[in-house]
Amino acid sequence: MPNILHIERIEIMNRELLEKIESPSDVKKLDAAQLPLLAQEVRDTIVSTVSENGGHLASNLGVVELTIALHRAFNSPCDKIIWDVGHQVYTHKLFTGRYNRFDTLRTENGISGFSRPDESEHDIVFSGHSSVSVSTALGIATANKINGKKDYAVAVLGDGALTGGLIYEALNNAGRMQDTRLIIVLNDNGMSISKNVGHLAKRLAVMRSRTGYFKLKAVTEKVVSKLPFVGNSLAKKMFKIKTDLKNMLYQSNFFEDFGVRYMGPVDGHNIDLLCETFEAAKLINSPVIVHINTIKGKGYVPAEKNPSDFHGIGSFNVETGEFKTNCDNFSEKFGEFLYNQAAKDKRICAVTAAMSLGTGLRAFSEKYPDRFFDVGIAEEHAIPFSLGLSKNGMVPVFVVYSTFLQRCYDQLMHDFALQQSKMIIAVDRAGIVGDDGETHNGIYDTAFFNGIPNISVYSPSYYCDLNNSLVNTLYHSEGPCVIRYPRGGEPFKPEWYQCTGNSFDVFGDGGAEIAIVTYGRIFAEASKLLDEFTKSGEKIKVIKLNKIIPVPEGAVKEAIGCKNVFFFEEGIKSGGIGESFGASLLNNGFVGKYKLTAFPDCFVKQGKTDSILNKYRLDFEGMSKVIKKFTEASDE
Amino acid sequence: MPNILHIERIEIMNRELLEKIESPSDVKKLDAAQLPLLAQEVRDTIVSTVSENGGHLASNLGVVELTIALHRAFNSPCDKIIWDVGHQVYTHKLFTGRYNRFDTLRTENGISGFSRPDESEHDIVFSGHSSVSVSTALGIATANKINGKKDYAVAVLGDGALTGGLIYEALNNAGRMQDTRLIIVLNDNGMSISKNVGHLAKRLAVMRSRTGYFKLKAVTEKVVSKLPFVGNSLAKKMFKIKTDLKNMLYQSNFFEDFGVRYMGPVDGHNIDLLCETFEAAKLINSPVIVHINTIKGKGYVPAEKNPSDFHGIGSFNVETGEFKTNCDNFSEKFGEFLYNQAAKDKRICAVTAAMSLGTGLRAFSEKYPDRFFDVGIAEEHAIPFSLGLSKNGMVPVFVVYSTFLQRCYDQLMHDFALQQSKMIIAVDRAGIVGDDGETHNGIYDTAFFNGIPNISVYSPSYYCDLNNSLVNTLYHSEGPCVIRYPRGGEPFKPEWYQCTGNSFDVFGDGGAEIAIVTYGRIFAEASKLLDEFTKSGEKIKVIKLNKIIPVPEGAVKEAIGCKNVFFFEEGIKSGGIGESFGASLLNNGFVGKYKLTAFPDCFVKQGKTDSILNKYRLDFEGMSKVIKKFTEASDE
Repeated sequence: MPNILHIERIEIMNRELLEKIESPSDVKKLDAAQLPLLAQEVRDTIVSTVSENGGHLASNLGVVELTIALHRAFNSPCDKIIWDVGHQVYTHKLFTGRYNRFDTLRTENGISGFSRPDESEHDIVFSGHSSVSVSTALGIATANKINGKKDYAVAVLGDGALTGGLIYEALNNAGRMQDTRLIIVLNDNGMSISKNVGHLAKRLAVMRSRTGYFKLKAVTEKVVSKLPFVGNSLAKKMFKIKTDLKNMLYQSNFFEDFGVRYMGPVDGHNIDLLCETFEAAKLINSPVIVHINTIKGKGYVPAEKNPSDFHGIGSFNVETGEFKTNCDNFSEKFGEFLYNQAAKDKRICAVTAAMSLGTGLRAFSEKYPDRFFDVGIAEEHAIPFSLGLSKNGMVPVFVVYSTFLQRCYDQLMHDFALQQSKMIIAVDRAGIVGDDGETHNGIYDTAFFNGIPNISVYSPSYYCDLNNSLVNTLYHSEGPCVIRYPRGGEPFKPEWYQCTGNSFDVFGDGGAEIAIVTYGRIFAEASKLLDEFTKSGEKIKVIKLNKIIPVPEGAVKEAIGCKNVFFFEEGIKSGGIGESFGASLLNNGFVGKYKLTAFPDCFVKQGKTDSILNKYRLDFEGMSKVIKKFTEASDE
Repeated sequence: MPNILHIERIEIMNRELLEKIESPSDVKKLDAAQLPLLAQEVRDTIVSTVSENGGHLASNLGVVELTIALHRAFNSPCDKIIWDVGHQVYTHKLFTGRYNRFDTLRTENGISGFSRPDESEHDIVFSGHSSVSVSTALGIATANKINGKKDYAVAVLGDGALTGGLIYEALNNAGRMQDTRLIIVLNDNGMSISKNVGHLAKRLAVMRSRTGYFKLKAVTEKVVSKLPFVGNSLAKKMFKIKTDLKNMLYQSNFFEDFGVRYMGPVDGHNIDLLCETFEAAKLINSPVIVHINTIKGKGYVPAEKNPSDFHGIGSFNVETGEFKTNCDNFSEKFGEFLYNQAAKDKRICAVTAAMSLGTGLRAFSEKYPDRFFDVGIAEEHAIPFSLGLSKNGMVPVFVVYSTFLQRCYDQLMHDFALQQSKMIIAVDRAGIVGDDGETHNGIYDTAFFNGIPNISVYSPSYYCDLNNSLVNTLYHSEGPCVIRYPRGGEPFKPEWYQCTGNSFDVFGDGGAEIAIVTYGRIFAEASKLLDEFTKSGEKIKVIKLNKIIPVPEGAVKEAIGCKNVFFFEEGIKSGGIGESFGASLLNNGFVGKYKLTAFPDCFVKQGKTDSILNKYRLDFEGMSKVIKKFTEASDE
């Protein structure tokens, strides 16, 4: 069998096994001897598709054998498999009728990179965020118990999920709900998203070092069960071996303190062993953790060597493992600006929740390790921890993706806004993120920040704005501040644009009766419109908000005399900045027309960012249409 | 010494020690022999004040000796004590210059029932929510380490805090930050807010049963340290005793898996022992947990007997322990309505996060234990767990206080709204809660729900509306639904009022040019205004929203032709329903005046609910003023 997944790549082979699999029952039908080839075909498919479409590579390559074993040992969808986060569901998708569409992965109208019930009955819930799976699976198992059903609920999670507090709430509840058929598969690759953090990781490492025990047990039990009638002495000896092994295997450990049985660790790339283990776990009829060890990126050398870099990625060259994207983006720029400030100001600390690479903090972490804190997938902890730093004279900057910031909303209220201590939150991936879809778009933070008292929120459009915002929040603001910026690079910047550092700027004809109000990345689109209007001699002004919360009073005054005001917002409409701006206008006696264009009451699906902005009329073309249509209607 | 705290109460004695304490240094000056009397005086003060003002009784009575010991062993505010939740800070307040104002506890302009930095430099952070303290203290300790300071950070938390996931995020991070002077005091009363839940509680019980070990150790060490030079044999023997004891005490346990040292358990009512233990903990110079056992409600018999009932309470009769409040309130009614539905529909489950009593679910929990789930202070877990139930045919109803619902905002997005599965969230204490102040008001959920796609939110005004909403969401709605209702009893109900179950109702003159739009409890105030207008022959209509998200289109149409529209909202203005209503009006060509009255961009302080509503012009008087002022201004 050719080893196609190494750098010296040969032609794609025929995927003879995989292409015949339409449902999990087809996986069950294969001979055990065929499974390594199936795994090979799966890996080949994943590597080639992700190299084109981008996606989660290393995490998916690690669970190929696990997924085969799960679909042989369990009976999906009666038994329900819940994938934590969902960045390891590619093999599952390939086995559940989605092989033929797999090349559409993460594209508009294509299949999602995460679990989605509207794609398949084998995807039980929508997923995308970490540490939730055990709770959901416990609910499913509990309902089965109430209804007298014998089906299993299976949660599959990575070791990174153990850095998120929610998992302990679930374990603590699972432990007292005995007689529920809940099986928790802990896929331990010692990595999570980037290098695992926290002391518990060390404990897992200790457990990992015991690999082989469980195999020994399985073999021994097989031997014991097949023994013919033997004399008392031998039987006793065998019993002793079994007991000793059992004690080694099922020793009281961390998980058992929560009341959840523990089995493992098991080699997560040995399909036979995994199947045997799951069969054993099924007999327990109580919540049980099966601890398996896998290699993140397994089977593709560049990913095995750099699993963090190959976690969530864009397209890449399969032969060389080189990425096709460039590095010039808001994340890297923010990292650079913060690094520069930290060099001058020893009070500045950087805090991240398992996203040190994605948020551009690598250089900071290497240069200032004493002031750099990766807290794991623990966004809730990040904020009160930052508060503590702040209370003792440091200036913490918590850098976090918009969608994950949701996870600490209570802390935003209780430990950030209420405290009025000097803290900064830098919100990366604010706005549409594109390919990752519903669970990852950063279009909701505007609305949820809007309902939080006593904070300042900045939404820069360009790198120079970003740096200005950082300096502003560090040295010219009191209390809790937020800076939010989009995924990707700087948008179109007109030659006439200059950063002012003001809370808002007005461009175009100050006396115009038509005003466009906007902020963030899509100001670039409005600037094109301004140029076009100016060329054609029409009067218009663009009010660019740099600070969006609270809405600057001056910006409202600039708009109040206008006949038509158009607000464009790359955020959800309901509860967002545009509604507050409109309410301010009304409250101040505005009598013109107001048209707000923003995302409607929905979760925005995956697609290219440009395409999505176009669809929702938040690009040049869309803005033009909105203004034209509205102006025509008003003239009638 | 008279036992003043038992039912057979005698005259209040002179508080000779307590009244001389102005700061923690005064606590340090007392002789050890005086401390039991001090504790007695503190308890007397707490019981009499809480019996008048309401507050947290049982939790505060449990930590009197602990607080004395903390202020003797540590040097506040250089050493910083962070009180988890803060419902155990009364003794701390009495020792830090607030004895003279203690009778203003929880009253308007009085001292708060929680920790507040604006009251005292000894209150490090604002607090009110659970499981946060260790994160904050770790941040403080880390900043000390960076700055080379030798001060301590001390977090004090109850065992209930261990049911919240955030604490594990903090422990996991603490464990790898050795050389930080963090001391975590686990005040274990085996109760938390109501009866403790989760398997971990059992583990704590096992640890508790070892009380006395630590005392033994302390004594032995004292003996050993004072031994004169002795022969090898005796020294060896002593060393052996020490080692054995040490192994017993510092045995590897749950907390040490997180990398945090463990000491305990210690009798939490023995001041000497507590002080000794803290002195020992201070020498460790690494994160350490000191596990102490206390009796919730200690020293006041009714509270010791029923600590759950005496957790957070209204005023009561000290002699009899009887409560002065009545039981007729929204919480009890909701519990009753849900109970009635559950009797008919076996799919209905009730889920609560440690608030089974406060949310009126006692009868449900007793009658239908198989369908009742108290998950602990684990709001995040509650929602995906409910999702799991829902995915297997059950109909979960998660009943939760508005302010604590904040703690699972990500789950509201990810595991509730996005899933479109049949789930109901019942939000108790929505609106102003009164005496508990900033950290407990339920005026933010309107805004944060507003920015969440694909959900329906109902806001009933009366019990009959509440029941209608429940029936509506159970049987006439798809997907995720929310019902929110206030703390306390039914407000004024005009004789003409009848529940319709519609998404909105219009009262008064349909053709009027003045419209009041409102929802929830304060509709009662608007109804009085309507009666007054009607009496004086003026035309007005009141549009009462029963469903607030999404805003019913019909309600917007009802308002659109009006000259003046007044929106009154018992919620935060920014991002709230009134702004969305205004934006809808604008978007539909409204040309009248719109005046929105809601809570401004602030945290609302403690006070009586009526008084707060009056202050913010959300009662009859305030509404009248707003309308009068606005109408006069428009006429000019």
